[in-house]
Amino acid sequence: MADQWLTTLLTSGPQEGFELAIKLARMGVKYTQPSAEVRDRLRPDYAENADSLTAVSQVVAINFQTIAAANGYWRG
Amino acid sequence: MADQWLTTLLTSGPQEGFELAIKLARMGVKYTQPSAEVRDRLRPDYAENADSLTAVSQVVAINFQTIAAANGYWRG
Amino acid sequence: MADQWLTTLLTSGPQEGFELAIKLARMGVKYTQPSAEVRDRLRPDYAENADSLTAVSQVVAINFQTIAAANGYWRG
Amino acid sequence: MADQWLTTLLTSGPQEGFELAIKLARMGVKYTQPSAEVRDRLRPDYAENADSLTAVSQVVAINFQTIAAANGYWRG
Amino acid sequence: MADQWLTTLLTSGPQEGFELAIKLARMGVKYTQPSAEVRDRLRPDYAENADSLTAVSQVVAINFQTIAAANGYWRG
Amino acid sequence: MADQWLTTLLTSGPQEGFELAIKLARMGVKYTQPSAEVRDRLRPDYAENADSLTAVSQVVAINFQTIAAANGYWRG
Repeated sequence: MADQWLTTLLTSGPQEGFELAIKLARMGVKYTQPSAEVRDRLRPDYAENADSLTAVSQVVAINFQTIAAANGYWRG
Repeated sequence: MADQWLTTLLTSGPQEGFELAIKLARMGVKYTQPSAEVRDRLRPDYAENADSLTAVSQVVAINFQTIAAANGYWRG
Repeated sequence: MADQWLTTLLTSGPQEGFELAIKLARMGVKYTQPSAEVRDRLRPDYAENADSLTAVSQVVAINFQTIAAANGYWRG
Repeated sequence: MADQWLTTLLTSGPQEGFELAIKLARMGVKYTQPSAEVRDRLRPDYAENADSLTAVSQVVAINFQTIAAANGYWRG
Repeated sequence: MADQWLTTLLTSGPQEGFELAIKLARMGVKYTQPSAEVRDRLRPDYAENADSLTAVSQVVAINFQTIAAANGYWRG
Repeated sequence: MADQWLTTLLTSGPQEGFELAIKLARMGVKYTQPSAEVRDRLRPDYAENADSLTAVSQVVAINFQTIAAANGYWRG
């Protein structure tokens, strides 16, 4: 993947950090399935399935751990 | 998502931290499935399924790790 | 949930910490399915299923990580 | 559970720590399914299933993280 | 596996770290299934399945935690 | 298990650490299913299944977190 999409883990606050965690979760998928057409086709499979949505939320939670630690938990 | 819903990870105690962990777990779902109508329709699929409930509890546990660390485990 | 059920992550020893981890795992379920009647009905679904029990044990393990860290691993 | 089964996370070395991690994984199951008769009956369900064994190994890995950290990774 | 494929966890930035996390996820598979022919044959099974892609993204997220910590979160 | 198979988490580099993580993942299975005959019989079940391989890679990733931390991420 040639283009630059991630230059820092630092964000202005926890919500922006959470949204970056979502981006990382999606990029983890994108590197494995680069075709936007296929990803779009698969979307209803998980967006309308309770367990799939929970699984997505789990990946977000794991990435949010990383980003929150990187930002010192925005304690400052 | 335009509105501000997360401005700090700091909470007054561990129970409030646990409840914030639940909120994060739900927001991880909401970002992927923004339709409240669809989420409500899916609710019985996981709220009345033992394994789905365990999976939700796992996401909460992961988010609680982050929040507990952010709060220095409310040791003070 | 109005009542106070978690005021500290500190416990007198690792076993009490492990038992608190179990409580957190259960509370993660309870917040999503508040009906004790439904939870009791679902009990055989996971208590008599090997994979479900492993999944429960995993949530306990994640919560125990948090509690053990909070307690400085009871090293003292 | 009345009896004392966990008084310390400290072990003499990493292998003993790994074996304690296995014990914690089993206790996570035991607290949810206290009947030894039921647990024995379920044993073939996971001991002869590849994915179930991987899931058990994952719970052990999570518990081993906790125990290894508690022991300062036995670096000394 | 005789050849050297991992000599450092340090990367020039977070994106390179994320890409290394993907490599680790793939190597975790490769050590278990060394046959490139078999892995290629299995590719459609996960690359066109939403839940499988989420699972891959989760492994990447876990490896990214490790690499991000190794790099001090590229804060410098 | 009588024999000594794990005396240290320290390795000469990250690749050796990753290979130790694989060993831990396998030992987590071996303690639960000690029969080499059964484990060999189950091998095709996961070695030729995409989701099973991802699950194995996840256990490796978790163990690698532990080993990498033990080794100070081989930064030196």
